[in-house]
Amino acid sequence: MDLLDPSLQRYLDLGGIFVFAISGALLAVRKNFDVFGIAVLAFATGLGGGIFRDLVIGAVPAAFSDPGYFLTPLVTTVMVVFLHPELGRIDRAVQVFDAAGLGFFCVVGTVKAHEYGLGTVGSAALGLATAAGGGVVRDVLANEVPSLLRRDREVYAVPAIVGASAVALLLRFDALNNWTMSAAALTAFVIRLLALRFNWRAPRAWSRGGAGDTGASEGVG
Amino acid sequence: MDLLDPSLQRYLDLGGIFVFAISGALLAVRKNFDVFGIAVLAFATGLGGGIFRDLVIGAVPAAFSDPGYFLTPLVTTVMVVFLHPELGRIDRAVQVFDAAGLGFFCVVGTVKAHEYGLGTVGSAALGLATAAGGGVVRDVLANEVPSLLRRDREVYAVPAIVGASAVALLLRFDALNNWTMSAAALTAFVIRLLALRFNWRAPRAWSRGGAGDTGASEGVG
Amino acid sequence: MDLLDPSLQRYLDLGGIFVFAISGALLAVRKNFDVFGIAVLAFATGLGGGIFRDLVIGAVPAAFSDPGYFLTPLVTTVMVVFLHPELGRIDRAVQVFDAAGLGFFCVVGTVKAHEYGLGTVGSAALGLATAAGGGVVRDVLANEVPSLLRRDREVYAVPAIVGASAVALLLRFDALNNWTMSAAALTAFVIRLLALRFNWRAPRAWSRGGAGDTGASEGVG
Repeated sequence: MDLLDPSLQRYLDLGGIFVFAISGALLAVRKNFDVFGIAVLAFATGLGGGIFRDLVIGAVPAAFSDPGYFLTPLVTTVMVVFLHPELGRIDRAVQVFDAAGLGFFCVVGTVKAHEYGLGTVGSAALGLATAAGGGVVRDVLANEVPSLLRRDREVYAVPAIVGASAVALLLRFDALNNWTMSAAALTAFVIRLLALRFNWRAPRAWSRGGAGDTGASEGVG
Repeated sequence: MDLLDPSLQRYLDLGGIFVFAISGALLAVRKNFDVFGIAVLAFATGLGGGIFRDLVIGAVPAAFSDPGYFLTPLVTTVMVVFLHPELGRIDRAVQVFDAAGLGFFCVVGTVKAHEYGLGTVGSAALGLATAAGGGVVRDVLANEVPSLLRRDREVYAVPAIVGASAVALLLRFDALNNWTMSAAALTAFVIRLLALRFNWRAPRAWSRGGAGDTGASEGVG
Repeated sequence: MDLLDPSLQRYLDLGGIFVFAISGALLAVRKNFDVFGIAVLAFATGLGGGIFRDLVIGAVPAAFSDPGYFLTPLVTTVMVVFLHPELGRIDRAVQVFDAAGLGFFCVVGTVKAHEYGLGTVGSAALGLATAAGGGVVRDVLANEVPSLLRRDREVYAVPAIVGASAVALLLRFDALNNWTMSAAALTAFVIRLLALRFNWRAPRAWSRGGAGDTGASEGVG
């Protein structure tokens, strides 16, 4: 039943938590929150997606049962509190880490949902929610419109959908192994990097004969 | 134990999801979100209340285990992306559908909570949360004050409370059948339509000797 | 296994719900919400932290299974609707009650998490989330930045961390009894009162050579 070597799953999870927690903590610094605000956003961003996934499948969230899941955002908070000017300067590096976290989380989330008995569509949907959930919680707490929803941010949903669907299909056809799984994570990671590099935006709602800025002719589908 | 014919319960649920998803997707169009933003708000509004209910009673949310629950908001998203000018023009029709969804959800939510062992008060409260939850999630994600809370929106809570309480009492006195249940859903539906038609507002907090706009003399109780 | 006399645990819980519900209802009055908005914020603030805790540990939230948990915020709502000018004038008293609720909740939350099998770190973290969760839900629903995160509010996290950690350590070393538990709750309560009295703020992120208002030299650690 263990599709992922449990310790590999744990390290992928912790890696994703680390990079997501950095993005939460940096947003808190930009919003001028105090150190507890930084810590809360680091924890919420790093752990939010996984807690939601575990509540849905009925597992006790690892965030509360494995001290490693607690220590990772704590270490991140300390790092960001003292190093945020450097981290801010390497914004591009943070985005690369965040893309890596996206790859980790949509794979781990889909696999864990499948292990708990969800079907192909349900597993992919929960993998997607795991990958995107932390960022949504981060933005809601910071009282901003989630970047996931916004037209002026590079597409986040496409790489997560591709990665989670690929894993769900591999599970369906019994073709998931360490190689295909890594390929799925890598695909999500690369698509996200391309979206950032080439500034891909998703189209808006279709507007009949709509010239001007309601048009949906640009962007990826 | 199955108080509702399971397939009837499923169709009522899907009907409610459909109409709530439309309201979420239309709000996303108005806020100028991209197609993924429209999809996320459609899913969150349609499925949010039911996911909360299922987490509370310890069921795996149907949203992740039954592909129909996934396809409904997806179809809604496609519809709204291509037809939103027409749907916007039939705003009144959408409100009628939304009132129907309110009726479905407060009945289904109360019955399902009772099936999982909650008492009369708990079942009614969870039915109310099921009916109102999706709209709250929608407004929080869109970074707006939930219309459920606002004084300048027609009352939403009263029809939901009436419908959910009626079903909980029918369950208590063992008088729930397809007829009484339909009557409860219909009552919630009609009260909501009347609130929309006659612009019913709920009073604010009572203000001693308060002339002027802090007065609570108008509105339904 | 019952570390707290169940009826004592229930009364502490209800006391915390009562004072938190008052803070939610008063915020709703200040935001000019209608009576249902007042009720929703009273319920969400009073019950939010405990519902989150119970979802994590896999218990059916007491909020939906024990009518007392439902009646307390209801009574609070009625009180606030009719008495809010008096309550507003006794703002200081409300803050004292809220500090008492903080003490109750971080103790009860930590103990309940431990009873359900969480470890020392996990129990303390969940106790903290129980104490702080209601206020976060309140502020998110009211579309404000949670005071937990804000630099311009007196520290809330420190007393909750101290109280929850103290209880978790007492559990670890098998030294929890009614006396030590009361001492932990009292400590959290007193620290919060001192923070309010002396206007303690938490530092912000560290800023190298940072003179001016980005400095983190003031405040508690």
